[in-house]
Amino acid sequence: MAKDPQDQPVAALLAPDILELLEESPGDVAAETEELHPADLAAVAEQIPHDRVRALLSALPKERAADVLEYLDEELRAEFLEEIPTEQAAALVSQMTPDDRTDVLEEIDEAVAEEVVSELPAEARAETERLLQFEPDTAGGLMTTEFVSVSADVQVDEALEQVRALARSGRREATYNLYATDRDGRLAGVLSLRELLAAPPGAKISDVAWTDVVSVSPQADRQEVARTTANYDLIAVPVVSESGHIMGVVTVDDVIDVMEEVQTEDIQKLGGMEALDEPYTSIGFWAMIRKRGGWLTALFLGEMLTATAMGHFEGEIAHAVVLALFVPLIISSGGNSGSQATSLIIRALALREIHVEDWWKIALRELPSGLALGSLLGLVGVTRILLWQFTGWYDYGPHYRLVAATVGIALVGVVTFGTLAGSMLPFLLKRLGFDPASASAPFVATLVDVTGLVIYFTVALLILRGTLL
Amino acid sequence: MAKDPQDQPVAALLAPDILELLEESPGDVAAETEELHPADLAAVAEQIPHDRVRALLSALPKERAADVLEYLDEELRAEFLEEIPTEQAAALVSQMTPDDRTDVLEEIDEAVAEEVVSELPAEARAETERLLQFEPDTAGGLMTTEFVSVSADVQVDEALEQVRALARSGRREATYNLYATDRDGRLAGVLSLRELLAAPPGAKISDVAWTDVVSVSPQADRQEVARTTANYDLIAVPVVSESGHIMGVVTVDDVIDVMEEVQTEDIQKLGGMEALDEPYTSIGFWAMIRKRGGWLTALFLGEMLTATAMGHFEGEIAHAVVLALFVPLIISSGGNSGSQATSLIIRALALREIHVEDWWKIALRELPSGLALGSLLGLVGVTRILLWQFTGWYDYGPHYRLVAATVGIALVGVVTFGTLAGSMLPFLLKRLGFDPASASAPFVATLVDVTGLVIYFTVALLILRGTLL
Repeated sequence: MAKDPQDQPVAALLAPDILELLEESPGDVAAETEELHPADLAAVAEQIPHDRVRALLSALPKERAADVLEYLDEELRAEFLEEIPTEQAAALVSQMTPDDRTDVLEEIDEAVAEEVVSELPAEARAETERLLQFEPDTAGGLMTTEFVSVSADVQVDEALEQVRALARSGRREATYNLYATDRDGRLAGVLSLRELLAAPPGAKISDVAWTDVVSVSPQADRQEVARTTANYDLIAVPVVSESGHIMGVVTVDDVIDVMEEVQTEDIQKLGGMEALDEPYTSIGFWAMIRKRGGWLTALFLGEMLTATAMGHFEGEIAHAVVLALFVPLIISSGGNSGSQATSLIIRALALREIHVEDWWKIALRELPSGLALGSLLGLVGVTRILLWQFTGWYDYGPHYRLVAATVGIALVGVVTFGTLAGSMLPFLLKRLGFDPASASAPFVATLVDVTGLVIYFTVALLILRGTLL
Repeated sequence: MAKDPQDQPVAALLAPDILELLEESPGDVAAETEELHPADLAAVAEQIPHDRVRALLSALPKERAADVLEYLDEELRAEFLEEIPTEQAAALVSQMTPDDRTDVLEEIDEAVAEEVVSELPAEARAETERLLQFEPDTAGGLMTTEFVSVSADVQVDEALEQVRALARSGRREATYNLYATDRDGRLAGVLSLRELLAAPPGAKISDVAWTDVVSVSPQADRQEVARTTANYDLIAVPVVSESGHIMGVVTVDDVIDVMEEVQTEDIQKLGGMEALDEPYTSIGFWAMIRKRGGWLTALFLGEMLTATAMGHFEGEIAHAVVLALFVPLIISSGGNSGSQATSLIIRALALREIHVEDWWKIALRELPSGLALGSLLGLVGVTRILLWQFTGWYDYGPHYRLVAATVGIALVGVVTFGTLAGSMLPFLLKRLGFDPASASAPFVATLVDVTGLVIYFTVALLILRGTLL
């Protein structure tokens, strides 16, 4: 999540002091900022001039600087790491947890990243190269490989001693949970640090660990990881290979980042565009135009069919210009009811409240919904026409009653169709293997616009034949 | 998150076995299911006949049944708790953590809830009554009051002993972090359980705790709690009173639930409706129609202005029916570009990438974006008309060049206006104190539809005067 100066009053207050200290006695910066949360120190770094960021990070011990880097704005971090000597960058990222290290290396220039990796200590290098092979959006790409595992045969006090030794070593394992392994090294149980502390000292780990371990495969996509974490209220979810060996854990802070990313993408897709994949504030102008223009053109090409449909009814419009007046009202009502239904169904599918094979149940529910909503709007529409006619605000001609009936009945049809089409399209897309969120509201609106015109003019032909038409 | 039978293969496999066991030897159910995650057991409960749920939960020890209840579907849980004798319900919910207990009591019938509270043991009752006074959507409403605090003066080994004693007592504190308090009981520091284990035994808590504690006030809204948790990668965020005393902690699993709720509401609002506040599958038909019909009618009333606008240009349409053909194409392009801009800005505001006072910077960026996107669509539109004319697919009359120019120029104007209006509306709404997400795409589309018609016919009057008009 991007830092907000307003949300970070601490940072805004501290920035001038820290800048001054950097100028006058850089040696004191580390001690003076020791108690600050690294996220706050990162926010300070984002508020001082760019050329001072390097001085600030150099004034901190390496491990602390690595902490701050983890919270720093992506762009600023990439800029900084590409600028400093490769060995320095390697020394810094080697202090990071393996998952954060991989993320950071994926952000920076590929050539620089390769050099940095080659400068890492052998063990960290091997681990980093292995993690870099996973797709960033999978459990493998999200996991950290530093977690605590103990043999299931070990006694509780011995396990506790192992945890304490690890904690003191300054390594940075995810220590919320202990993972117990069997003699073949396969994951055999899990217990929380709290449960370890509560366990009777003489017991074996296998006596106190939970053997029903919730886990994901390294290929699991990020949404599955998030869903598993949310469903089971986990702090960390273990990533387990087909052979049953634990390869790493995804921690809940990364799951929260995933949820935010997915939400941003969903909202952008619903808005009828490609996901930006970059903050609005940092994406380049033409990159953004491309992501918006592509979908906008696609929708435009679809919407051209409305001109074709209207062309078919040009004769009717010429005879009864009054019909044209209600075209925007009618097609937008179809579009609005369609986008309501689409948003509802997309979200219910994402939350797994409903499933692809339930499509007919939803259709059976949305059909009466559409009829009810269409009747509501039809009633309002008829009232509007009659009111305008009787008060003399507008004259819809001698056949105003038939015009009102046409609009009213067309609204029932268009809204019902919009609701049904809007609710079924996500199922269709999901069935075809696409992301239902791409059934964005504007896409439904375009579909419904064309059909809405056909419905409207067909109703008009039926009702007005012999009078206006 | 609702449970998904497909995501819970364990539950689907186990349900028949557990049902059989319940029939034949209910006394063995507890032991046989001991290793199951309570979320899986809750999923089993959701898959067996409703009248067996009570038998299943009665077969479990109270604490275990309370665990399962925490993961159970809200409706099923409310139904169950309202059905069993009040004392039994009280005995069950008294086993829950205070925050979950409060949540559960807020879901069930108010009269029943009051009776259940009156049956709670004195301490739990007082705590529950206190928590029920907070708004559910604030930090106070989300927090649990069972956390671990120690005096900052205490030595590390003594603190560790306190934690172990608490863990063994079977109480259910959030033990990820230890909160250190000063002599007046105010929050003075925080350290993780891991840091406690790593600390040198002779040290005092005040020597090893972090004094810069990130916290929220009890009135902080749920979005602020989520943002703080995400920004600082927290597992639990302490809720601190004005006087500096820690009142409770919000744990990350509740933050994840909040993020899901907020996302659902945002998507529903963007879809042009009120947030349902209930799963799609459990909300009543008429309750849903009300939530959808309200906004749909509001949008319809706004969209009626298009009929008024079209009425103004009835004479022009009668003269040049060809103009009517492009009305849907033009106004939908404005609507689509508007909803793109709206979704982008709403999300960037929510992520605090941009701020209300940046509106003019965004306007300066969206103006050229709108012009670029409008020119793109204008070009496509002109090409379409010329292509149809030359190939003979449609005859736009002798002035087809002027018609094409009208459509092209109107598209530039409408898309630019749509983009600008769509990007500025969220700022306006936020400035007025509304949720920018309510500037849902359909609302922008309605606004842009009316304006788009005026732009289109004005351009037509300027270009076609003397020829078609």
